[in-house]
Amino acid sequence: MGDTFGRFFTLTTFGESHGPGLGGVIQGCPAGIPLSEEIIQKELDRRRPGQGISSTSRKEKDRVKLLSGVFEGKTTGTAIGFYIANEDQRSRDYSKIKDVFRPGHGDYTYTQKFGIRDYRGGGRSSGRETVSRVAGGAIAQEVLRTRGIHVFAYTVELGGIPVETKDVRAAEGLPFFSADKNVVSKWEQRIREVRAEGDTLGGIVEIMATGVPAGLGEPVFDKLDARLAYALMGVGAVKGVEIGRGFDAARLLGSENNDPITPDGFKSNNSGGVLAGISSGQPIICRAAVKPIPSIARPQQTINKDNQPVEINIGGRHDICAIPRIVPVLKAMVLLTLADMLLLHEARSSWVSG
Amino acid sequence: MGDTFGRFFTLTTFGESHGPGLGGVIQGCPAGIPLSEEIIQKELDRRRPGQGISSTSRKEKDRVKLLSGVFEGKTTGTAIGFYIANEDQRSRDYSKIKDVFRPGHGDYTYTQKFGIRDYRGGGRSSGRETVSRVAGGAIAQEVLRTRGIHVFAYTVELGGIPVETKDVRAAEGLPFFSADKNVVSKWEQRIREVRAEGDTLGGIVEIMATGVPAGLGEPVFDKLDARLAYALMGVGAVKGVEIGRGFDAARLLGSENNDPITPDGFKSNNSGGVLAGISSGQPIICRAAVKPIPSIARPQQTINKDNQPVEINIGGRHDICAIPRIVPVLKAMVLLTLADMLLLHEARSSWVSG
Amino acid sequence: MGDTFGRFFTLTTFGESHGPGLGGVIQGCPAGIPLSEEIIQKELDRRRPGQGISSTSRKEKDRVKLLSGVFEGKTTGTAIGFYIANEDQRSRDYSKIKDVFRPGHGDYTYTQKFGIRDYRGGGRSSGRETVSRVAGGAIAQEVLRTRGIHVFAYTVELGGIPVETKDVRAAEGLPFFSADKNVVSKWEQRIREVRAEGDTLGGIVEIMATGVPAGLGEPVFDKLDARLAYALMGVGAVKGVEIGRGFDAARLLGSENNDPITPDGFKSNNSGGVLAGISSGQPIICRAAVKPIPSIARPQQTINKDNQPVEINIGGRHDICAIPRIVPVLKAMVLLTLADMLLLHEARSSWVSG
Amino acid sequence: MGDTFGRFFTLTTFGESHGPGLGGVIQGCPAGIPLSEEIIQKELDRRRPGQGISSTSRKEKDRVKLLSGVFEGKTTGTAIGFYIANEDQRSRDYSKIKDVFRPGHGDYTYTQKFGIRDYRGGGRSSGRETVSRVAGGAIAQEVLRTRGIHVFAYTVELGGIPVETKDVRAAEGLPFFSADKNVVSKWEQRIREVRAEGDTLGGIVEIMATGVPAGLGEPVFDKLDARLAYALMGVGAVKGVEIGRGFDAARLLGSENNDPITPDGFKSNNSGGVLAGISSGQPIICRAAVKPIPSIARPQQTINKDNQPVEINIGGRHDICAIPRIVPVLKAMVLLTLADMLLLHEARSSWVSG
Repeated sequence: MGDTFGRFFTLTTFGESHGPGLGGVIQGCPAGIPLSEEIIQKELDRRRPGQGISSTSRKEKDRVKLLSGVFEGKTTGTAIGFYIANEDQRSRDYSKIKDVFRPGHGDYTYTQKFGIRDYRGGGRSSGRETVSRVAGGAIAQEVLRTRGIHVFAYTVELGGIPVETKDVRAAEGLPFFSADKNVVSKWEQRIREVRAEGDTLGGIVEIMATGVPAGLGEPVFDKLDARLAYALMGVGAVKGVEIGRGFDAARLLGSENNDPITPDGFKSNNSGGVLAGISSGQPIICRAAVKPIPSIARPQQTINKDNQPVEINIGGRHDICAIPRIVPVLKAMVLLTLADMLLLHEARSSWVSG
Repeated sequence: MGDTFGRFFTLTTFGESHGPGLGGVIQGCPAGIPLSEEIIQKELDRRRPGQGISSTSRKEKDRVKLLSGVFEGKTTGTAIGFYIANEDQRSRDYSKIKDVFRPGHGDYTYTQKFGIRDYRGGGRSSGRETVSRVAGGAIAQEVLRTRGIHVFAYTVELGGIPVETKDVRAAEGLPFFSADKNVVSKWEQRIREVRAEGDTLGGIVEIMATGVPAGLGEPVFDKLDARLAYALMGVGAVKGVEIGRGFDAARLLGSENNDPITPDGFKSNNSGGVLAGISSGQPIICRAAVKPIPSIARPQQTINKDNQPVEINIGGRHDICAIPRIVPVLKAMVLLTLADMLLLHEARSSWVSG
Repeated sequence: MGDTFGRFFTLTTFGESHGPGLGGVIQGCPAGIPLSEEIIQKELDRRRPGQGISSTSRKEKDRVKLLSGVFEGKTTGTAIGFYIANEDQRSRDYSKIKDVFRPGHGDYTYTQKFGIRDYRGGGRSSGRETVSRVAGGAIAQEVLRTRGIHVFAYTVELGGIPVETKDVRAAEGLPFFSADKNVVSKWEQRIREVRAEGDTLGGIVEIMATGVPAGLGEPVFDKLDARLAYALMGVGAVKGVEIGRGFDAARLLGSENNDPITPDGFKSNNSGGVLAGISSGQPIICRAAVKPIPSIARPQQTINKDNQPVEINIGGRHDICAIPRIVPVLKAMVLLTLADMLLLHEARSSWVSG
Repeated sequence: MGDTFGRFFTLTTFGESHGPGLGGVIQGCPAGIPLSEEIIQKELDRRRPGQGISSTSRKEKDRVKLLSGVFEGKTTGTAIGFYIANEDQRSRDYSKIKDVFRPGHGDYTYTQKFGIRDYRGGGRSSGRETVSRVAGGAIAQEVLRTRGIHVFAYTVELGGIPVETKDVRAAEGLPFFSADKNVVSKWEQRIREVRAEGDTLGGIVEIMATGVPAGLGEPVFDKLDARLAYALMGVGAVKGVEIGRGFDAARLLGSENNDPITPDGFKSNNSGGVLAGISSGQPIICRAAVKPIPSIARPQQTINKDNQPVEINIGGRHDICAIPRIVPVLKAMVLLTLADMLLLHEARSSWVSG
């Protein structure tokens, strides 16, 4: 069931970068939520390439089509199918990568696992797979919106250069979805340098959710932070996840890390809005470490299918950094997680209140 | 389903720190695996308190009893039930914490979620819950052993003091399961200082799995690293998870982070043994950041159930650091994850090879 | 996950007839439901042997012990563990059945599947496994009770002799949980005849649920009737399941089978309270066909492990009919199904009403 | 998760009768299975309307399009997406049924559950939903074929008239997929009579699987027969399910119902190929009772949304009997169940044999 996310509000996806298209099915969405292709399209447009200096100029139109589950502008409570055709499928020459395992990619592991590999652009392991996540996240967002929950995603570090301030809401309009407008030019400069060397960069994205009521998350294994870690680490290129203070917390004293509680709320938010796996009512804060894109324009040492040494040089129109395109994807994963945990929680909360 | 871990080889747990006892059910275990109470007990003994300077002197015997699923010394393929009675349940005075929300604990969030709270020692959010995980992990370990897979867990940082070398196998016999025998005295010194101040410490634990064949992990959401992140972040006190180079990878160039492939294998292991979510055949390497224990022996600001400000001072026989007790727990979570992914993978691999 | 029932309100069970004991874990139970060992024990006592002419005189005390999830007399919302020790484990001589496959039992199929078999009384395939279902059903019953939902189970046919009238509520106090007090003496007479011949009997049990609100059940695969069929057919000895008119419906005209709707409700209930897989607000009615017990006191033709022909004669203290002992089990399965579907439904219904 | 079937080899579906189209996603399919649109199309063509006297003349072309998971003619092991556009969507007048609840349909229960209803042709509760099941079943069939497992579905009773003989393989080429060519003219005559009266009919379909190895099915809840019952009862119009002798078994003596075992195999198959929930290696045999189609061309008593009494007369081009169109659907459900249970079983069987 590796293509289904969630337990209650679920997204099932399919599709490869060079097949006919990609899509998904949302289950468990409550009835009566206003939904349209425009609402989903708006989120999809945020992850398109060609939006910043770090991205390629490739144009994917990514037009979403709603196939079911919406009637007269509202969700019916039944399965919502959606589809995004691949429009940019012109024939290419794959002879360079067909029998070679690109370092840092899934070529080797997919071949080992399945004995077969769709070598055209990475197949199911392509970053393009995430388009379905963003579409699903857009639907989750409409559910959460009815409860006053909002999710923001923004870049806090790129190429080793961190932001100095965080303006969460301004990030939406800035290159790289940067949380700090003053750092943008430094990032652009760094990307230019690295591109000139045929190399690539990584970064760190933070996601914040506001309006999350206390009570989301389940004891033991399905803690809210565990589900968030699963959600974020399941995005290709992510190698680390933090909640609240994250790894820093391992270096603090208990007296420093504990968030004091007052009649007006918590005095700090080192916990990142999650205590014992359950949301506390504070903003949820988490971070994902994004590795540099493995397709570099420099010669690399690898092997081919016959286990012979090969030097490969992946040129072409590749992104330098997964940021900013990964930002809406990470946001979508948090949206999907929260919608799932919210419904899971609401099922039983009527007994608590009643 | 927050008390069930895994999809195929699953562990379901129950139990609180101050109820009759704790236990669990393993499903999906293959038949014919040698198993006994002694095998499980050996792992349980590794997480007992009173084993080092950072732990309390409380004695929990934690005797496991096998209730089903084993016949004539071997698993039958049916559900394996096990139980560990709570032996240390003497009556105590809970009046100090009954109506007060301890900072950094689940008291507040559990009350918000369930409207009811087992105030005796944290109930289901108690660290004692993890005893069932260790028992379940011991069973997973026997399954993995038949395939030559071994998991090691060891401490690489405590109170901000990192190890300088890593001797993975020696850690088993060292205090704190330290990966570096030379750092132990520094850690002990740091703990003495912090205890004198009534404060607590955190640290970082690394887990390594050897012998994992290429092919474990599913595309998209159930990537092996995503499942590991879920497993580790679901342990109370964990605030961050890394795979391979983790957050460092966000600061590397692509040319530095990619692991070159040679006919004799990968030349480095920045990926932590996972590429595109699927194991590569290299050792799996992950890390968990453990926050300082929230029960400090210093006055803290909080509120009671009536939302009135209260100062609380949690004295008593509390651990200074979740390390070393959390180390076997984190190891167990990786064991459970790998057993689950292994069986999930083997179901289909007969078609690939055949 | 064959030992876990349900998706949201779930029961996970373990245990064999001749091991230390049996038990289970309930997940997803709302907090604040009054629960005690007495409440569960009352249901367990209803399935004990030795209660009628069709049963053996074996005494199993079946004392349930609550292990977790209940605090100060109420559920806490966390996992509820329970355990029933096997008290009647005196040593016996299994040499007669150890290497022989009893016809109609799981001996052959378990050996084929697992390569290993707990030959003492059927192991996990023993009817005794159902004690955990009854305990779990008792907890579900307390949840449903808070919503005014009640489930009745009663025998409508035994040894080919059907009831002539149905008094659902009186069945509780009658032998065989018979729905018709006038048929009881005929059934007893039939059982005496069949016992004298060393043979066994089957029958049909009907289960009715009242107070079920309209709206339970999910479109497509998780229809309420599909979940009920799964629940009932999963009880050993059940070979057929009907909803409403069942197989009779296949012989009716559409004009006969359709239930007319009036402003005061439906005029008939051929549907059994389920339309398009979703409860209609009418009583849910389903039936299970119970095969004769396979352990007969007559010589039977079979084979042993070496595939040699063997004649087996299973004498001893065996029941003649699974009825009445199976009646509380079937009731429990309907209780568990309804509790699960109820919570599943309530998660989203707040959006519909709000 | 009501739109996902299975645990390991899973089908997730979406789509309504009058939306853009229907489709689904298969997960867990092994890699390397030959698959094409033609293979799936062949099964879809078997459920098309207009193929017999009992069906309407409506033409749905039902062209399936494969969207992912197949590369160079073989499955890749990743998610297989497929889509069938609705081609027959001409505008109609729904004013007659828009605000009225048709007896025997899901109109009332969907409105109660979701507060909203796609009144055009039943929405998600339409029989047209089953087209996705047939497509998914076709993929399952290719997996099972590699293991020598074959599934046959055929009609054994229609309008109360049973077959007298069963020729399982001939049924494929006969009207109604009848198991007895001699009964066909009687069924046609009965349909003509009933159509003249504006009424509808039901029937009984049997499904047989050959080549199923011993060992499929899990102990306790996920018994093979329980999963089959769930699968079949989850098809709209099915009101009863039997395995092997089914309800007849309730009237047999144990000595009659037990299947004797010989060195050459079982001497009879009353069990329907399932013992203690696990396949025995004999043919799997199950039956489904299909109710008469609720859309009759006669006046019926019902209510509208305002709870006012209304007389409704559903004329038009409706089928008289769900048979034969439901036959490929029931076959598909058994195919999906067996593929799922097969993979579930194979995951652990390598330990048994090794």
